[in-house]
Amino acid sequence: MPRDADTLPRELAEQAAVLDAGDPLASCRDEFILPEGVLAYLDGNSLGRPLKATRDRLARLVDQEWGERLIRAWDEAWMDRPLALGDQLGRVVLGAAAGQVMIGDSTTVMLYKLTRAALDARQDRVEIIADTENFPTDRYVLDAIARETGRVIRWIEPDPSAGVRLAEVEALLSERTALVLLSHVAYKSAYIADMPGITAAAHQAGAFILWDLCHAAGAIEVALDASDVDLAVGCSYKFLNGGPGAPAYGYVASRLQGELTQPVSGWMGHADPFAMGPGFIPAPGIRRFISGTPPILGMAPIQDMVDLIEKTGMPAVRAKSVALTEYAVRVADESLAPLGVTVASPRDPAVRGGHVTLDHPRMKEAVAELWRRGIIPDFRPPHGLRVGLSPLSTSFTELATALGHLRQILAADA
Amino acid sequence: MPRDADTLPRELAEQAAVLDAGDPLASCRDEFILPEGVLAYLDGNSLGRPLKATRDRLARLVDQEWGERLIRAWDEAWMDRPLALGDQLGRVVLGAAAGQVMIGDSTTVMLYKLTRAALDARQDRVEIIADTENFPTDRYVLDAIARETGRVIRWIEPDPSAGVRLAEVEALLSERTALVLLSHVAYKSAYIADMPGITAAAHQAGAFILWDLCHAAGAIEVALDASDVDLAVGCSYKFLNGGPGAPAYGYVASRLQGELTQPVSGWMGHADPFAMGPGFIPAPGIRRFISGTPPILGMAPIQDMVDLIEKTGMPAVRAKSVALTEYAVRVADESLAPLGVTVASPRDPAVRGGHVTLDHPRMKEAVAELWRRGIIPDFRPPHGLRVGLSPLSTSFTELATALGHLRQILAADA
Repeated sequence: MPRDADTLPRELAEQAAVLDAGDPLASCRDEFILPEGVLAYLDGNSLGRPLKATRDRLARLVDQEWGERLIRAWDEAWMDRPLALGDQLGRVVLGAAAGQVMIGDSTTVMLYKLTRAALDARQDRVEIIADTENFPTDRYVLDAIARETGRVIRWIEPDPSAGVRLAEVEALLSERTALVLLSHVAYKSAYIADMPGITAAAHQAGAFILWDLCHAAGAIEVALDASDVDLAVGCSYKFLNGGPGAPAYGYVASRLQGELTQPVSGWMGHADPFAMGPGFIPAPGIRRFISGTPPILGMAPIQDMVDLIEKTGMPAVRAKSVALTEYAVRVADESLAPLGVTVASPRDPAVRGGHVTLDHPRMKEAVAELWRRGIIPDFRPPHGLRVGLSPLSTSFTELATALGHLRQILAADA
Repeated sequence: MPRDADTLPRELAEQAAVLDAGDPLASCRDEFILPEGVLAYLDGNSLGRPLKATRDRLARLVDQEWGERLIRAWDEAWMDRPLALGDQLGRVVLGAAAGQVMIGDSTTVMLYKLTRAALDARQDRVEIIADTENFPTDRYVLDAIARETGRVIRWIEPDPSAGVRLAEVEALLSERTALVLLSHVAYKSAYIADMPGITAAAHQAGAFILWDLCHAAGAIEVALDASDVDLAVGCSYKFLNGGPGAPAYGYVASRLQGELTQPVSGWMGHADPFAMGPGFIPAPGIRRFISGTPPILGMAPIQDMVDLIEKTGMPAVRAKSVALTEYAVRVADESLAPLGVTVASPRDPAVRGGHVTLDHPRMKEAVAELWRRGIIPDFRPPHGLRVGLSPLSTSFTELATALGHLRQILAADA
């Protein structure tokens, strides 16, 4: 199998080595489990690699917290964990002050709960604004809720290589709009939507806004409080390295917590769960948005990644992310474009998140061959390869290796 | 600190040793993590102890499946896991044929989804039958759904030391009844409701039935298919040892899967999730009741316990459970009743699940003192000590030790 030096032009291969040598976060990569059989992993935006610390944390959790403290651990640590970890995630990653983020549920369920919370508080308004390029589960949840609550969805059809623009939202906003639901970073193109601008426009029209942060958190700097966001939801298994099917998180701005009610009233959202009384009395603050028993095991790995990001700081993570995507775009332009590859992500890093989508008519077959070689990006229909660049676990050389192989595969096919 | 021989009459202490010696499942206890600081754990009906195998399974999951297979593990194993484990749980524990059980969500969310599924399919019926002694989250979820969907709950107020009887349900059933929601085993008294009888009565009236199995599964033999049950929900962190906040499971009878629709339409319930197409097309079969990405890490420990129960078989587990509760009742009658303790659980083991509730006016203080001594039962208001007897991890001697200390504490107080 060729080495990257054989498959990328020398100047590009050398640039990767130079970038690695100058990367202040390069040593973070050693914190992750890096198996030898994987030449390059470019899917950290779908499932982040595990941290070595996570293996140890889970062993401690089983032996000590669960095994030895047993039920006592609920009082000692676990009851507070979805809010304590939520606070830390808010402070380190989401730009959210304490008391506004909780961990739990799946992203889909969290989306359902917060969407319903918003719509139930805007009974007089019949329209929801969303976009056709949003992640499927967002669209499916919204479709079902619209049917259930008698709402109409006004669909924006954005440029698939970019994303939803402020003007497209403004064109649909009116006194009929109950809610705007958009992704901060588009899951295919990586386009960064104008969070403060669109949020302000939604508020101007008297609508709520709910941001899906799945592809944003841990890759770009998110500023929920500064953008005056109402509601946000995200998953933790992408750039937050929470592991397969890790719990979601939800953000509800403090100013709205008294006004909104979510539909799944469970005992863990009760003001006094262990009183086990006859009627549901919602807990004060963000806890009322929790439904069932917090997934302690499932949220453990998130803690390790948030701790690591806290050490480096999101500005450094974002700088590395931009450098990685800039390099990917450069390689695509200089070395893959002649083979028919096009960049289906924004070229301006200011509006580009942590991944780059490359299109090619035969990309599906090329991705299959990459997988056979131990190079793991993912494929998104119709013909996109997503170069997902988890900033703390991906090296420039790893990226160069992957793109070199892609070049070789497409060239051999041509 | 006194040993159990000092605190229970000799004959009772000796009986415990004899029962342990004759217990065919005694060796199963060695499969669990048993820290020295815990003299006796009587809360396996709230949070089961971890299996040693679970520590190893999690390490393998992190290193190999997640760490090395990475995103490829979705195709190789994870996509099927909530259904494969659901099938095994159904076969081994729930009396359910394949294709009717899925794992996911919290118990609260699963209750919400299946309750809504039933009610949405009975739009013409306005009443729900439930009982005031059901677990709080069931009552809270039901209250909220009743308000949301304009239903009326007809509350049964059962004898708190027993549970809901068939006649009490029959008295309320009518052509107005949409759904009956009850616990198979009552969380306080451990009373076993008449699943086949009540199910048949509900069907006779044209209503759906939803059984909460939280305190039943893994303690008593459950026969969902044979009882012609419609829907069931349960948690996996009690007698299924899934760990704190482990995912729930849901059962939907095959004959209803085409008819029912759950409200949280997520991508993982789609017929082809990775097509990422525009509209929600529900998967055939039980998969349509899944919403978000399956919690792979969270469901791992359940696998170990279901494997262990598969080795022993539920009849043997139930026999051990009955022997444990019989012994607890005998000690209560012979040794604790003179101190004012009453048994708030059925005396007939045929209608008693895997725990026994003991009442005493000063039980709250006594439980606090037990905890200080490293003996961990739980307390349920107003003055109940729940002796939770996880059949595979609890020895008779452990139980004798705990009840001996309780006796000593109450005697010192008297």
